[in-house]
Amino acid sequence: MAEPQSDDGTSGTSWRKAKRAVTAAEAAAAAPCGACKFLRRKCVSGCIFAPYFSTDQGAARFAAVHKVFGASNVSKLLLRIPVNHRQDAVVTISYEAQARLSDPVYGCVSTILALQQQVHRMSSC
Amino acid sequence: MAEPQSDDGTSGTSWRKAKRAVTAAEAAAAAPCGACKFLRRKCVSGCIFAPYFSTDQGAARFAAVHKVFGASNVSKLLLRIPVNHRQDAVVTISYEAQARLSDPVYGCVSTILALQQQVHRMSSC
Repeated sequence: MAEPQSDDGTSGTSWRKAKRAVTAAEAAAAAPCGACKFLRRKCVSGCIFAPYFSTDQGAARFAAVHKVFGASNVSKLLLRIPVNHRQDAVVTISYEAQARLSDPVYGCVSTILALQQQVHRMSSC
Repeated sequence: MAEPQSDDGTSGTSWRKAKRAVTAAEAAAAAPCGACKFLRRKCVSGCIFAPYFSTDQGAARFAAVHKVFGASNVSKLLLRIPVNHRQDAVVTISYEAQARLSDPVYGCVSTILALQQQVHRMSSC
């Protein structure tokens, strides 16, 4: 059976594929970033978190950041940093947050102390 | 001239000294801790911050902690930690906060990266 033609003359399958692609793109565009998804708020254009917290996996990562630093504090911090350095800032903030949740007393400072001890041991060899 | 006697028979000078000491102690007891002083709130008995942020110098230290982590987040964090570990937690949180204010992009993670490089260099010698 011949493939049904759409109004513009393209085949039905191709048209449906294209339509699905557009719909998916629209959904992705409308989907909130991971931070806004976690905060259950509308993700506006120009959202400070959107480039760094994806819709899929960003919410879990943002949860740790939010719990340790707070969304407002991180937002203010990012706004004070040049755009080209914000990705690094988010990576280090996420790292610190995860470390603080894993070790509430020492956080990532435990890594600093361990490395300092390692350097000390290596120096005395 | 003989030193005037107070009603209880002690000398006037000693009595005034004792009164000043009591007044100073009362003032110290009534003074808010550094955190409550910074937050301009009444420092209640059992304040979670009071043992770790002194009236005199604690306010400046708390300012950094508040700016980076937020008073509420730190309060919740401390409440989840056994009392005998809270001093260490405050020290590491203050350290992280100061580092983040000094280096907004990397915070204390810059120290971890530097130490890792140092260990790597020492290992390859």
